Amino acid sequence: MSELRQDPTTEEWVIIARERVKRPNDFVRQQPKRELPDFSSSCPFCPGNESMTPPQTLLYQKQDGNGWQVRAFANKFAALSPGGRTTRNMKEGFFTEMKGVGVHEVIVETPLHNRSLALMGEGEILKVLNAYQERYNKLSRQQFAKLVIIFKNHGILAGTSLEHPHSQMVVTPVVPKHIRLRHEVAIRYYDKNGRCLYSDLVRHELKSGKRIVMDTENFVAFHPFASQRPFETWILPKKRQASFGSVSDEDLGNLAHILRINLVKLYRGLNDPDFNYVIDTAPVGDENEPYYMWHMRIIPRLTEVAGFEIGSGMYINTAVPEERAQFMRNLDIE
Amino acid sequence: MSELRQDPTTEEWVIIARERVKRPNDFVRQQPKRELPDFSSSCPFCPGNESMTPPQTLLYQKQDGNGWQVRAFANKFAALSPGGRTTRNMKEGFFTEMKGVGVHEVIVETPLHNRSLALMGEGEILKVLNAYQERYNKLSRQQFAKLVIIFKNHGILAGTSLEHPHSQMVVTPVVPKHIRLRHEVAIRYYDKNGRCLYSDLVRHELKSGKRIVMDTENFVAFHPFASQRPFETWILPKKRQASFGSVSDEDLGNLAHILRINLVKLYRGLNDPDFNYVIDTAPVGDENEPYYMWHMRIIPRLTEVAGFEIGSGMYINTAVPEERAQFMRNLDIE
Repeated sequence: MSELRQDPTTEEWVIIARERVKRPNDFVRQQPKRELPDFSSSCPFCPGNESMTPPQTLLYQKQDGNGWQVRAFANKFAALSPGGRTTRNMKEGFFTEMKGVGVHEVIVETPLHNRSLALMGEGEILKVLNAYQERYNKLSRQQFAKLVIIFKNHGILAGTSLEHPHSQMVVTPVVPKHIRLRHEVAIRYYDKNGRCLYSDLVRHELKSGKRIVMDTENFVAFHPFASQRPFETWILPKKRQASFGSVSDEDLGNLAHILRINLVKLYRGLNDPDFNYVIDTAPVGDENEPYYMWHMRIIPRLTEVAGFEIGSGMYINTAVPEERAQFMRNLDIE
Repeated sequence: MSELRQDPTTEEWVIIARERVKRPNDFVRQQPKRELPDFSSSCPFCPGNESMTPPQTLLYQKQDGNGWQVRAFANKFAALSPGGRTTRNMKEGFFTEMKGVGVHEVIVETPLHNRSLALMGEGEILKVLNAYQERYNKLSRQQFAKLVIIFKNHGILAGTSLEHPHSQMVVTPVVPKHIRLRHEVAIRYYDKNGRCLYSDLVRHELKSGKRIVMDTENFVAFHPFASQRPFETWILPKKRQASFGSVSDEDLGNLAHILRINLVKLYRGLNDPDFNYVIDTAPVGDENEPYYMWHMRIIPRLTEVAGFEIGSGMYINTAVPEERAQFMRNLDIE
């Protein structure tokens, strides 16, 4: 019989459909991905094509001084852009709307067209995380900034059409309701228990051990109890900290370590699956709140959301998180 | 500049990204779908293979008595199944879970393997709607029933692997939080204004006219102001009624009419896109509440949800609803 599990951070139910459960191998990509060259003359993100992008907002040189390692700039087809007022307007006397004020940036992770994040060294990944944080700390100070969403889309099923490894950052002038609700749950828990829900979750996962993929001194990676999708992986710091903006340099290094190994495990175990990841950080102004912990969610795109999910907001997950976590925990990547 | 629009029924923001807007033709399927035969000997939903499915729970004969027209049965790989208690249990002393109690049925819409809903006559579609309602009224009386989700997945991008036209119905033993929140919005609106939000929305859309695709005596089809996805289409009754279970036979006929024409418009205008539709009906017990109206949402699967949507819960829509509605309104399907 299947189970309904409630996500303690969203209070949403997930169906773990044991009757439909697939073996890990059923999720492994069967067709090899197209081999990419390390440079593409038509790629706007490749070195030498810098003039094809808007002006850069960040540039990290390579250590050997031989060109850049990480580069950021406004998205050429930005969903939101700076300038303009963030007043709410009545539209047609019935709806609420506002101008699309905000920021939408691209962070190119490497000069190499074919260097997947999972194949990078820890130092390279750290540079990407440094870039996220530097841009976060700059952009979150914009007056209109209410939330900064840092994310990566890897592969067509994850919603990207550009092959060159890159991440994106969007600064929204509103706190999305989805985020408000998650924070309301955390606040209620904090008020009731006097402790941070996410800290308790980390403590519990470490004690239980069943869903842990990797445990390091400062971070833990696990498959959540109510995973919405197979191989969904959360990375949480062990020290409570609401904002990604205030993570220390040392901890960014530790994050690069655990992130790399988890990405390699997915790459090897599932044959380079398409995936998204997001950094869930506190809204601007709530960076020091005691009830929240920033974290990363990695979502491999192995199954499609269908009518049931669209209608109910609940997910049917055809994998048992404990089994998948064990598979990943035991996967030897050396 | 792009716009942020708030969905009045969910209070969630959507970014209408004018800079990224695509022409309607960019959404048209380019590769032809594989031609299907009208019968497949290995298909469990084709006539003659009835023993490959669980026992039927509904069967409508063809008018000429020559076999069945619509058939329902439990999903062989049911996400939820009847039997067992719906008590919440503490798991590991930290999480909330319950048994996967519920119902998961399949409704085969036609004996013909290749007869898409969009290609059916109104009478055939009506039979499908009759089947939905008959099963709804039966299943919603189960003691554990809290919500009935009726949905259809058409095509691989919409999450189905079975080609034979079919719908599904899931009875959940919980009201998903997503649904609760939508109802809370409607209740707040009702308490403040003394009117149903959805009735006001219909009135407003009819008055504005900009987003209307089709207007009939009893139903209206439009693209919502804050459409999350290109060509998202809602069909609402003009008479307030919270539950799909209590729609009159005459209105089911009217629904078959407007649904068929909207499906044909999508089929012709976008070359048979993959899509989902869902019937959003009131939770069990709220069928007579004055603040809600059941409705249908058709969601063509033309774009992928990416990291931004996963992180923020907000959508970036690369189509302007008014423009797409006009395209569909003017599309001549005769």
